[in-house]
Amino acid sequence: MDVLAACRNAKLASRAVRPLTRADKDALLLAMADALVDQTAVIVRANDEDVARGRAEGLSEGLVDRLRLDDDRVAAVAQALRDLAALPDPVGEVVRGERLANGLEVRQTRVPMGVVAMVYEARPNVTVDAAGLALKSGNAVVLRGGSAAAQSNAALVAVLRSVLSDAGLPPDAVTLIDGGGREAVKHLMTARGLVDVLIPRGGAELIRTVVEGSTVPVIETGVGNCHVYVDAAADLERALAIALNSKTHRPSVCNAAETLLVHESVAGSFLAAAIPALDAAGVTLHGDSQTVRAGLAAGIDVVAADDEDWAREYLSLDLAVRVVESLDDAIAHIDRWSSGHTEAIVTDDLTASRRFVAAVDSAAVMVNASTRFTDGGQLGLGAEIGISTQKLHARGPMGLAELTTTTWVVTGEGHVRD
Amino acid sequence: MDVLAACRNAKLASRAVRPLTRADKDALLLAMADALVDQTAVIVRANDEDVARGRAEGLSEGLVDRLRLDDDRVAAVAQALRDLAALPDPVGEVVRGERLANGLEVRQTRVPMGVVAMVYEARPNVTVDAAGLALKSGNAVVLRGGSAAAQSNAALVAVLRSVLSDAGLPPDAVTLIDGGGREAVKHLMTARGLVDVLIPRGGAELIRTVVEGSTVPVIETGVGNCHVYVDAAADLERALAIALNSKTHRPSVCNAAETLLVHESVAGSFLAAAIPALDAAGVTLHGDSQTVRAGLAAGIDVVAADDEDWAREYLSLDLAVRVVESLDDAIAHIDRWSSGHTEAIVTDDLTASRRFVAAVDSAAVMVNASTRFTDGGQLGLGAEIGISTQKLHARGPMGLAELTTTTWVVTGEGHVRD
Repeated sequence: MDVLAACRNAKLASRAVRPLTRADKDALLLAMADALVDQTAVIVRANDEDVARGRAEGLSEGLVDRLRLDDDRVAAVAQALRDLAALPDPVGEVVRGERLANGLEVRQTRVPMGVVAMVYEARPNVTVDAAGLALKSGNAVVLRGGSAAAQSNAALVAVLRSVLSDAGLPPDAVTLIDGGGREAVKHLMTARGLVDVLIPRGGAELIRTVVEGSTVPVIETGVGNCHVYVDAAADLERALAIALNSKTHRPSVCNAAETLLVHESVAGSFLAAAIPALDAAGVTLHGDSQTVRAGLAAGIDVVAADDEDWAREYLSLDLAVRVVESLDDAIAHIDRWSSGHTEAIVTDDLTASRRFVAAVDSAAVMVNASTRFTDGGQLGLGAEIGISTQKLHARGPMGLAELTTTTWVVTGEGHVRD
Repeated sequence: MDVLAACRNAKLASRAVRPLTRADKDALLLAMADALVDQTAVIVRANDEDVARGRAEGLSEGLVDRLRLDDDRVAAVAQALRDLAALPDPVGEVVRGERLANGLEVRQTRVPMGVVAMVYEARPNVTVDAAGLALKSGNAVVLRGGSAAAQSNAALVAVLRSVLSDAGLPPDAVTLIDGGGREAVKHLMTARGLVDVLIPRGGAELIRTVVEGSTVPVIETGVGNCHVYVDAAADLERALAIALNSKTHRPSVCNAAETLLVHESVAGSFLAAAIPALDAAGVTLHGDSQTVRAGLAAGIDVVAADDEDWAREYLSLDLAVRVVESLDDAIAHIDRWSSGHTEAIVTDDLTASRRFVAAVDSAAVMVNASTRFTDGGQLGLGAEIGISTQKLHARGPMGLAELTTTTWVVTGEGHVRD
């Protein structure tokens, strides 16, 4: 497959998508949802091939589960498109506007990016989500899914493309890059002038490869070494609920907590309650010396932690625990080890919470709330294409607005500069 | 010089700048302005060395003029800092905020980037401008100026750093990278985790090198192949005034027009007036066959244009001219050749202006106004660190807000996810 030619066709197709009204786009998304449901049998059959091949190649059951589509999951994928149709159109929003002293009217207005590209791994629902988000925000999309989901992605994209054709739109507005291995990804990462933004979504290794190898603009997503800090002035019941929820609600995702920091003035009583509770929830603790001792007192093994534990995104039922001398120590630990995703403070001290919020340099800061709330759906964005951990363009959950850029539209009556 | 160590020190210094209030920052900028004026003699003496070396090395008079500082220019550089102090602080602005159904309070708030880096060429005033903009927006700055301005930049930065020290702040909040040649720039471009955004400002070659070689986030600036389109429904007097202003007001900058497109229905009368007027203003015309003929009729030589003319950013008193059959032809030409900076339409037809604005994919679109208005000062941003021609993060003139990112601050009362 000629990746650059495919990107060029997507760029051409983006011109047909760009001027669509919200009504056009919503009708398209609803038709796609219906078509996916109609074609469920075809999609599930293609997915069965991926699953069988994955099993034959020794894919773990966890990954097989992420890969699998059945009738309910296809219905859920279709429903996500219907939910997208219900969201407002970001295109056309006037971000800033005024009339200048010389009478020029200035409007900074949201417009589509053009071509949004995505490189991701084995979950085929991402294929449809990304296509829906891109189209709703007026963009064409170029998709590069994992090879494990090749048949599933091809079946899903075939359905979406046929709906585009039926609507009189170029099918290349949804383009799947298949085959070609690493070379194909390399071409995508360097398609300057054709790809307006490239979003990698997946493991740390995939993200690093894309960020370091791309010459097209990239939004870095997802690595989350998130912290929960239990302050001297914390309500300890709340603190325990937040620590448990942040760690155990869904340990495999980026907004799960990986390290618990505890102020020394409450460490004794807090750890005496928290260690057994976390242990009972199946969490393996990796602690500093004080935490190890507290574990011994509670009759629970705590692994001695080292710098690797402070640095790691476990993505599992493991949690690093450290006792700190002060709020400043907690901030310094986070500054040293955090990936800049989400940090939480549990406190009833307003000054402490203000200092924490002002000092912590992360995409999201939770005050008396679980780290798990860093999520587009939870924060009211309606849908999410990923969670940005960079500072440029988008930070934290990215919704439809983050898939647009702006144009300055300046209107005069023959204005020239003196 | 160890560039990574310098960036690390700037990162540390950024933590001291980050919490400064507007009052702190404005006082700092005003003290810097006073100190620059006080040290004028030292600065001009250092600049004299650069100028003498530049002349000895055969620098053109144009470049020597850009390099030169005298008492008035130092005063102007200081005044720019005072003007910055008068602007509102972008940090702390709440971009989006609401209370969710579950009672969580969500605020997306502007915060400093951290470390802003800039690579630029020979104009020493950029050194102070960039430092002022970075500090006002709560950032540390790492500067890499052109070697031609090395003594001037060192003198200016020494003044700024001494003011930081006097204010009890780490001088590394303004860090100059000197020496080390291309290797030093390479280190800066790959200082991941230390440089939050890198802005190249200068010629096309510098910008391409930085964009293609960087692994830190980059904002691409400035290449401007700008178009003026004279529509069938244009007021031809306005059209001529706008074409003249767009081309001749300051031909060497990125928002100057490089190509004039003329609808065929008005080409006869418009070109009969425009060719002599542009010629009288010293403009060399490069035209398609119809324009060459119109030149002959007016007794003025028009160079036959080819694709290179449509592609070129002349940055000089040269202008490509082409007659188009329709508005769509004009849009197609722009789509093919534009660098996405600024395009202008001159028309009294509302439908034509709407179609042009909707179809043109550039940072700025002017309706009945000169391309020269794409400028932070002109558009009311107050100050500008460059003009972005990419779609990510910032597009068009970048002011103080574009040197910030946002943090999601989520406040609850022990909220956890179900």
